[in-house]
Amino acid sequence: MRVLQRSLYQLWLLYHLKNSRAIEADPKKQEQLMIVDNLIHARWIIPVEPESVTYEHYSLAIEDGRIIDLLPTGLAKQKYQGMITENLENHALLPGLINCHTHAAMTLMRGIADDLPLMDWLQNHIWPLEQKWMGEAFVKDGTDLAIAEMIRGGTTCFNDMYFFPDIISQQAVQHGIRASVGLIVIDFPSVWAQNGAEYIAKGLALHDQLRHSDLCSTAFAPHAPYTVSDESLQKIRILADELELPIHIHVHETLHEIEQSQALTGQRPLQRLHELGLLNPLLIAVHMTQLSDDEISLFAESGAHIVHCPESNLKLASGFCPVAKCLAAGINVALGTDGAASNNDLDMFGEMRTAALLGKAVAGDASAIPAMTALRMATINGARALGLDSFCGSLSIGKAADVIAIDLAPLETQPLYCPVSQIVYAASRQQVTDVWVAGKRLLKQRQLTTINIDDLKVKIAEWQQRLSS
Amino acid sequence: MRVLQRSLYQLWLLYHLKNSRAIEADPKKQEQLMIVDNLIHARWIIPVEPESVTYEHYSLAIEDGRIIDLLPTGLAKQKYQGMITENLENHALLPGLINCHTHAAMTLMRGIADDLPLMDWLQNHIWPLEQKWMGEAFVKDGTDLAIAEMIRGGTTCFNDMYFFPDIISQQAVQHGIRASVGLIVIDFPSVWAQNGAEYIAKGLALHDQLRHSDLCSTAFAPHAPYTVSDESLQKIRILADELELPIHIHVHETLHEIEQSQALTGQRPLQRLHELGLLNPLLIAVHMTQLSDDEISLFAESGAHIVHCPESNLKLASGFCPVAKCLAAGINVALGTDGAASNNDLDMFGEMRTAALLGKAVAGDASAIPAMTALRMATINGARALGLDSFCGSLSIGKAADVIAIDLAPLETQPLYCPVSQIVYAASRQQVTDVWVAGKRLLKQRQLTTINIDDLKVKIAEWQQRLSS
Repeated sequence: MRVLQRSLYQLWLLYHLKNSRAIEADPKKQEQLMIVDNLIHARWIIPVEPESVTYEHYSLAIEDGRIIDLLPTGLAKQKYQGMITENLENHALLPGLINCHTHAAMTLMRGIADDLPLMDWLQNHIWPLEQKWMGEAFVKDGTDLAIAEMIRGGTTCFNDMYFFPDIISQQAVQHGIRASVGLIVIDFPSVWAQNGAEYIAKGLALHDQLRHSDLCSTAFAPHAPYTVSDESLQKIRILADELELPIHIHVHETLHEIEQSQALTGQRPLQRLHELGLLNPLLIAVHMTQLSDDEISLFAESGAHIVHCPESNLKLASGFCPVAKCLAAGINVALGTDGAASNNDLDMFGEMRTAALLGKAVAGDASAIPAMTALRMATINGARALGLDSFCGSLSIGKAADVIAIDLAPLETQPLYCPVSQIVYAASRQQVTDVWVAGKRLLKQRQLTTINIDDLKVKIAEWQQRLSS
Repeated sequence: MRVLQRSLYQLWLLYHLKNSRAIEADPKKQEQLMIVDNLIHARWIIPVEPESVTYEHYSLAIEDGRIIDLLPTGLAKQKYQGMITENLENHALLPGLINCHTHAAMTLMRGIADDLPLMDWLQNHIWPLEQKWMGEAFVKDGTDLAIAEMIRGGTTCFNDMYFFPDIISQQAVQHGIRASVGLIVIDFPSVWAQNGAEYIAKGLALHDQLRHSDLCSTAFAPHAPYTVSDESLQKIRILADELELPIHIHVHETLHEIEQSQALTGQRPLQRLHELGLLNPLLIAVHMTQLSDDEISLFAESGAHIVHCPESNLKLASGFCPVAKCLAAGINVALGTDGAASNNDLDMFGEMRTAALLGKAVAGDASAIPAMTALRMATINGARALGLDSFCGSLSIGKAADVIAIDLAPLETQPLYCPVSQIVYAASRQQVTDVWVAGKRLLKQRQLTTINIDDLKVKIAEWQQRLSS
C-alpha cells in the first residue's frame, strides 16, 4: 500500500515537474534536468573519503537509496531536480556514524548499577537481571530504545552482540537502520540457546534468513576468549572463512582477563586466538586495552581490526587502548560505545571526542588522533571492520545514502574556523537534525519518522518498573 | 522604569491573590499562604548538601533572590503562593554549576588551532592572535559568547582569568551571571598593564570597585609560577591575606613546567609556592597533573584547593591529575573547563562526566569518583574553592537561588533508576531548560533572557572574519 502511494506521488510529481518545465524561459536547458529522489544542498559536505576534504556549498544527489552525485551546488541546480529538495544552509553533511560495538537491548539497564567494579557489576547486577528478564520482549523493546537513541544521535549502522539476534535484525529492518547482527556464541545456557552447538546452529539459520537483506548483515559474535571454548572458536573460524563473515569478540578488555588466561592456559588470550587461526582480516577485536608492542606488530600483520570503546574502558576502569600506536602500526581502529549499561549512552559524537582527547593523553602527544582521524574511526574504519566499506562509511558516489546533517549554527559551535574540528570537539549529537539510511529519511528536523516515541516511552517505563522491582 | 513596572505588577498580583482568596472555601487555611517571588515544584530536587540526598516531588520557595524554603510539594502548596509558579514534572533541580577555571573571552578562538602540542599552539597561534587583537572589544564580545554558552549549559558562576577583568565583571553583571573575576598578573606587558606592579594596582582598583557587587567577587590571578616573579607572588600573598582574596593560578600543568622550574630554580613549582607562603586555604591551584604522594600530603595539610580540568589536560596531552588520591587525602577538588580554545567548550556536564570516567581509569578502580562526587566537584567544591560556599554551591535555605532545571524525560536519559547517575553519565547540557541566578531567570525554556542571541552571532561572525584573516 505504501509502495503504491509512493508510486502515485512520484507520478504526480513527475507530471507536475514536466508541466512546470514546459513554461520555463529556457526549455532546452531545463529539459536537461535529471529528476532524482533527493537533492540535498548543504553548506559543507565532509565525505571522509577522500580524507581531509571539506567541500563548501556542495550538494548530494540520491536515487534509489544510493549517492549518484556529489558536486558544487551551482552545478547541482543546473543538473538535477529533486523529488524532495533540502537546503541546509548552516549544516554539514557527513556519512552516518557507525557504532562498531554495542549491546543494544542493554539500554534498558542504563544507570541501574553504576560506579561498581566490573565483576561486581556483572555478577551481582547485570547477569541476575538478564537471567530474570531476558526474552524476546526485553530484546525487542531495549533494541527499539537503542535504535531511537542512535538515530537521534546520527548513528546509521550498529554492530551488535546480544541474545535473540533474530529480534535485533527484525527491529533494525522495521525502523530502517543498518545493522551488523551478531550471531552470539557463549558457553553458558540462556533462553536463546543451550550450548555452543545450538548457538552456532541458530546463528547460521539467522544468517541464511538475512542473506538477501539490504539492511542487515551478520557477524559471528563469540562473547570473549574466556567464555567460549577452543572447540566453538575453531568451528566459528571454519564457518567464518567459508561464509566470509566477520568474527566480533571482546579481547584483552582487562588485565584480569589476561592474568586469568595465563593461569588457566599459560597463554595470553591474543596468542590463543592466533593459534586457533582467528587472527586474520575477519577478526573484530573489541577493547584491546592490554597490548604489548609485539602484540601490536602481530595484530597489524594479521590485518585484523580493533574496536576502541574509550568511555566504557574508562567507566569500568579497564585500561587504556594505545590507539595512536595501533594506528601508526597500520591497524584499522574503529569506534564503539559498548552497551548503554556501561557507558551510559550510545553517543558516537561523545565517543569520537573522548577517543581524540584520550588518545592524545595516552600517547603523550597533543597532535595524536586529530579530529579527522576520530571522524574516520567513527565512519570508514567502522565500515571496513564490518566488511561494509563498499556500501557505506563515506559519502562516495555509488555507496548507499547513509547520510547525516548536523547544524553548526548554534552558539556552541561558533565561531567556526574548521567544521571537522567543531564537529569532533564542540558539537553535540543534539545538533544532528536529519538522518537518512539507504536514502530513507529516519530523522526529519529532529523527529523520528519510523518510531513512535510516545509508545516507546510507555514501554520503557514498564521495563523500568519491572527491572527495579 | 523596570523597577516601577515590577512593583505595579506585584501590587496588582497581591490584590488579585487577596481577592481570589476571599472566595475560597476555607479562607482560614488560605490566609496562611505566604506569597513568594518564585515557587518551583519539581519531580526531583538534588540539593548537593546534605550529600547523597535526592528529594522527589519537592519544591523550592525563592524570595528576594534567596532560597527561603525547600519542602515536599504537598506542603509547599499549603504554605506558599508564588508570584511566579513553575511545575517541572519531568525535571530535576540542581544548584547551578560552577566553572572554576576558564578564560571566557578565548571562546572567540574556539577551534582555531587544534591538534597541536601546547607550546606550538600557544607560541605560534594563540599568543600572536592575542597580541594582534587583544582589547576591550575582544574581551567584551568573547566574554558575552562564553556567558551565553555557560548559561545555556547550566553554569551559574565562573572563575575567570584574562585581560581586562573590568570588562569581564561588567558583562557578567549585565547578563546576570555570578563571576569570580581574576585580577590577572603576568610578567609580560600587555594592553591591559605593563608590568607586575601595574597589573596588581589595576587589579586592586577593580577589587575596590566590585567590593559591594552582589554578583562579582574577585581573586588574584597570577598566571603561573613560570610567568610571575617571586616579587609579584610575595606582594600578592600579602595582599591576599589582608583582603582574604583567593589566589587563582595554573600549577603543575605539564611535566615540562616542572623540568623547566627545576633547571632554573632547583625547585618544583609547588615547593617554590610553598616557600613563598602561598600554600594556604586561599590558594586555587589549577591542573595539578604532576603530583608526588608527598606533594599530595603537603597540599592536603595546607587546606589549598585544586581545580581539575580533565578535558583540557587530555586535549593538550598535559597528563592525568590523580583526583581519587587527592580526594582521599582530603583535598577540596573543584572542576573547570579551561578556555574554549583548549577544550573546546564550556560544558560543565561534559566535564563532570569526563572527570568521573577518567578518575576511575586513572585510579584503576571503577568505584572511584562516583556520580555524586563529580556533581559535588562541579558545585559545592567549586563554591568552597572560591570562598563562596556560604552564598552558593548547594540548594540550601538562606543561600542565593542559583538553580538549574534539567529535563530528564528525553529518551537519552530513560529508563531512569537514579537521577544523579543519569545527570552525570547520560544527560547533556541541552537538557537544561531553565537557569536562575540570585533568583533571576536567565534561561527560560531554553531561551536566554538577558542576551540577544542574534546580535551576538553577528558580532561573533565579525570576529571570525578578523581572526582568520
